Amino acid sequence: MLEVIVRSTHLDVLGHVNNAKYVEYLEWGRCDELEKLGFDLWGMIKQGIGFAVVNLDINFRREAFVGDILEVETIYREIRGGKLGILDQEIRQKSDGEVVCDARVKFLVFDLKQHKSIPIPEEMLRLLPGNDKE
Amino acid sequence: MLEVIVRSTHLDVLGHVNNAKYVEYLEWGRCDELEKLGFDLWGMIKQGIGFAVVNLDINFRREAFVGDILEVETIYREIRGGKLGILDQEIRQKSDGEVVCDARVKFLVFDLKQHKSIPIPEEMLRLLPGNDKE
Amino acid sequence: MLEVIVRSTHLDVLGHVNNAKYVEYLEWGRCDELEKLGFDLWGMIKQGIGFAVVNLDINFRREAFVGDILEVETIYREIRGGKLGILDQEIRQKSDGEVVCDARVKFLVFDLKQHKSIPIPEEMLRLLPGNDKE
Amino acid sequence: MLEVIVRSTHLDVLGHVNNAKYVEYLEWGRCDELEKLGFDLWGMIKQGIGFAVVNLDINFRREAFVGDILEVETIYREIRGGKLGILDQEIRQKSDGEVVCDARVKFLVFDLKQHKSIPIPEEMLRLLPGNDKE
Repeated sequence: MLEVIVRSTHLDVLGHVNNAKYVEYLEWGRCDELEKLGFDLWGMIKQGIGFAVVNLDINFRREAFVGDILEVETIYREIRGGKLGILDQEIRQKSDGEVVCDARVKFLVFDLKQHKSIPIPEEMLRLLPGNDKE
Repeated sequence: MLEVIVRSTHLDVLGHVNNAKYVEYLEWGRCDELEKLGFDLWGMIKQGIGFAVVNLDINFRREAFVGDILEVETIYREIRGGKLGILDQEIRQKSDGEVVCDARVKFLVFDLKQHKSIPIPEEMLRLLPGNDKE
Repeated sequence: MLEVIVRSTHLDVLGHVNNAKYVEYLEWGRCDELEKLGFDLWGMIKQGIGFAVVNLDINFRREAFVGDILEVETIYREIRGGKLGILDQEIRQKSDGEVVCDARVKFLVFDLKQHKSIPIPEEMLRLLPGNDKE
Repeated sequence: MLEVIVRSTHLDVLGHVNNAKYVEYLEWGRCDELEKLGFDLWGMIKQGIGFAVVNLDINFRREAFVGDILEVETIYREIRGGKLGILDQEIRQKSDGEVVCDARVKFLVFDLKQHKSIPIPEEMLRLLPGNDKE
C-alpha cells in the first residue's frame, strides 16, 4: 500500500486530480509494491530491462482534491505464458476507504536496447504470485 | 486529427514516452476534436460544466521517442441514455501510420460545483454523432 | 518543512529529477507553508484570488534520484509595498541535509477574473513575516 | 524559434499555464535550438553525456491560456572557461509578440555515469556562439 498526497500541480483546470495523474499514481504504486515484494526494480532498469504496460483498463469513480490522502493498493494477480503479467490496482481515500479509481493492468518485461519483450526474469517470477510456471 | 510532437519532458527514465503522457495526448485530442466539431468546450467550462472520463481502456502498442510526430485521431461514437458518451481514439506515427496506442473512452458531462453528472447538453448532442435521442 | 518522496515519473530521460519537477516541488512547499502559517489558500482561490510567481531564481546544486526523501523548506521573507512578496526556498536530502536546490521567489497576489495584481490581503499580511506595513 | 501550443494539461487550477510548465517549454526550446544549430543532442545523451541546468532566473510576465500559440526563442550567449554555458530565452505570444516570460539559463555538460561535470565537447563549442576559446 502506497500513500500519496494530492498536490497542487496534480489538479487540472477543473479543480480536481487530472485523469493522467492517476495513471502516474498507479505507476508509483506498481514500483512501490515490487520493492516491497523484495524486487530490485531500479537495479533491473540499470541493466537495461524495463516494464512496459500493454493495456490499462481504468475506472475513474470519484473526484479527488488537493490535500487528499490516497492509498494505492497493487495486487500482482497472474503471469501468463511466462511473459504477460496481470495486476489489479485500486486508489482509495485514506479517510473513509472510498474508491477513487480502480484499474486492471497488463504488462510485459522488455529489453530496453533491443526494444522487444523478453520472458519475465526468474528472480521476478519467484517473487510474484500467480506464476503459472509453478 | 491533432498533431503532437514528442518533447524531451514527455520521456521517462526508460527513454520513451511514458504511459501517463499518452493519456494527456488523448485528452488533447478529445478537446481538439470537440472544437473542430464546432463545440465551445472552454466556454462550457467557464460556465461550470466539464467532462469527466469514467473509463479508459488503452492499449500501448509501440514505443514513441523524442521528436516523433504523432497523430491523435478521435471519433465520437455514441451517446447512451443522453448521458454516457463513448469515443475511440488512436495515436499513430505520422511518418508511416504505425499505431502507437489506441483507446476506448467513456465520459460523462458533469456540474463542476455540484460535483454530479448531468445530461449531455443539447448543444453538444447536436454536434456529436451517435446521439440516440435523434 | 514539507517532505517529498521522488517518484518514477519525476525522473527524466537522464535518470534524475527533471528541473521542471523541482519547480513543482517548490510550489508544493509554498502551499504547504502557507497552510502551516494558518492561511486558507484554497479558500482564497475559490473566492477568485490566486498567487502568481513573477520571478524565480533557482540554483540546481545536486542530482536527486527515485526514492530520495527530500525536505522543502520555505521562508516568507518580506513584503514590499504591500504587493510584492519575497521568499526563500531550499530543497535538501533528508538523509544528510545535502542541498539539492535553492531558490528565491517573488510573487504577487492577483484577481483571477480581472487578471491583475491586487494588494496582498490583510489576512495574509498578518500571517506573513517581513510585512513592511507593520 | 520553437512553436508551442498550450494544451489543456498545461493549465493549473487557476486556469492558466502553470509556472513549472514554462520551465518545460524552455527545455524544449533549448533542445530544439541545439538541433537547429546542427548538434546531435540525443546522440550525445546515448553516449552518456547530458546537459544540466545549474541556474535558472525566470520572469513570468503575462498569463497564457489554452490554445495560445507561443514562440520560444533561445540564444546561446557565452561559454565561460570551457565549462559554463549561458543562454537567454524568451517565450512570446505568436499573435502579437507579447512577452509571456523570459529567462537566463546557466548550464554545464556532465557525465551521466560519473555524475560530474566535464568540459563542453569540442563538437558543441564549434557550434555555439560566444565560445571564449576562439
